[in-house]
Amino acid sequence: MNTYKIAICQMKTGNDKRKNIDHAKEMIESAMKGDPQIVVLPEMFNCPYQNEYFPKFAEEYPGDTSIEMSVLAKKHGIYLVAGSIPEIEDGKVYNTCYVFGKDGTLVGRHRKMHLFDIDVDGGVYFKESDTLTAGDEVTVVDTDLGKIGIAVCYDIRFPELSRMMALEGAEVIILPAAFNMTTGPAHWELSVRMRALDNQLYFIGAAPARCDDASYVAYGNSRVSDPWGEIIAEADASECIIYAEIDRDKIGSIREQLPLLAHRRTDIY
Amino acid sequence: MNTYKIAICQMKTGNDKRKNIDHAKEMIESAMKGDPQIVVLPEMFNCPYQNEYFPKFAEEYPGDTSIEMSVLAKKHGIYLVAGSIPEIEDGKVYNTCYVFGKDGTLVGRHRKMHLFDIDVDGGVYFKESDTLTAGDEVTVVDTDLGKIGIAVCYDIRFPELSRMMALEGAEVIILPAAFNMTTGPAHWELSVRMRALDNQLYFIGAAPARCDDASYVAYGNSRVSDPWGEIIAEADASECIIYAEIDRDKIGSIREQLPLLAHRRTDIY
Repeated sequence: MNTYKIAICQMKTGNDKRKNIDHAKEMIESAMKGDPQIVVLPEMFNCPYQNEYFPKFAEEYPGDTSIEMSVLAKKHGIYLVAGSIPEIEDGKVYNTCYVFGKDGTLVGRHRKMHLFDIDVDGGVYFKESDTLTAGDEVTVVDTDLGKIGIAVCYDIRFPELSRMMALEGAEVIILPAAFNMTTGPAHWELSVRMRALDNQLYFIGAAPARCDDASYVAYGNSRVSDPWGEIIAEADASECIIYAEIDRDKIGSIREQLPLLAHRRTDIY
Repeated sequence: MNTYKIAICQMKTGNDKRKNIDHAKEMIESAMKGDPQIVVLPEMFNCPYQNEYFPKFAEEYPGDTSIEMSVLAKKHGIYLVAGSIPEIEDGKVYNTCYVFGKDGTLVGRHRKMHLFDIDVDGGVYFKESDTLTAGDEVTVVDTDLGKIGIAVCYDIRFPELSRMMALEGAEVIILPAAFNMTTGPAHWELSVRMRALDNQLYFIGAAPARCDDASYVAYGNSRVSDPWGEIIAEADASECIIYAEIDRDKIGSIREQLPLLAHRRTDIY
């Protein structure tokens, strides 16, 4: 067996940055009871998902949040995919996911590449581009558990990005995300399953818990899909920790039986 | 309102080519009672889905099947997306979809681009490449109902192809297909919905009815998804005709509210 365990901390976030960081730390400590090798936090785990808060809560690297996450990764000897936080550099604010290795070093950083600008009739309006700048880099982290692709929320909408990560060797894609009450029920699980299936890898969608009184109400419902497009771990809307087993041999086995990646018409696209 | 109606003939096929053609004609005649502007047949509607039959039943163009389909398109003044049949040219056999216009002329031809070679543990084994040759062309047909992308079955597995058709202006993708009892329940509806959602177009998956005593048991379950990824027409496994309304204004409206195609990072991929 060539397996390991991953934990998602589906946490609530509020308007107090210090409390959010402390709460993330508590949840990571709780998650360790299940002995995971990777722990994942949701998108914007230290900050309300509102444009007015992004610049206010933004940190340079290293900053309070990233330093404390690094310490926790080292303490527990885990990979910590620290959801995302608003990151500031040269006056620009990004929606950034830091990945810390077992010794606490920063092994990856993904800045959300696709900004969420949406205006659905009778549904959700949000324009991240009012305050945020998009990242320009595809992020695949090389770990001793295999290659792991990192993306953030709306990045899932673009099949090109997941495909690029798969072709760079990702066996797992981890996506902190906060879908909402319009797009969540309609598209979230579908998207997690399909990116996994198309690219024959595990896809981990880590959501915050739902807060009905928040300005932006997140859907919750963290999901993990296996490479066959089957959901192997799921949460409801409440605060919780869920675990999934990543079976690295299964990735190879499915890619052999149904060789989608090999059957791509690279002469044509 | 800027709408039109599409009909899928989810027909059974057997080992007698003449009977298959006649049966397709009967089903198209029946479908006309619902007044569709487009009628769609399933994959390999004149031939059992078995490698040994493909070369035996193959026709050059024009041939018995294509001529009779052309006559029917003209008779009813419809677009007829004539599922697929084995087509032979220069000694090579293709899995080919012909599209006939309202005056019976051939307005499109798609040769399946991705051949179905699969070997699932405890599931389905099939190697189309034993007898078939893959086509090399992306097919988008310009009609007075808008641009329509055409692909066949396993072609759906590759997000690149649907994306190329969408970028060439397709508002609808029509895919005659015969998923099986392994991949059908696991992946068929999911794939139809996701290609529609990603590309913000209508996706029509036209399957043959299930024959439990066939060598290759098709899943049936024709599906139509709207551009929001919602199923708007569905069949079970039995022989039947289903209809869906294509609302061309809805395509533009969804592309405006959630501008996925506009948000692609064309600077990066």
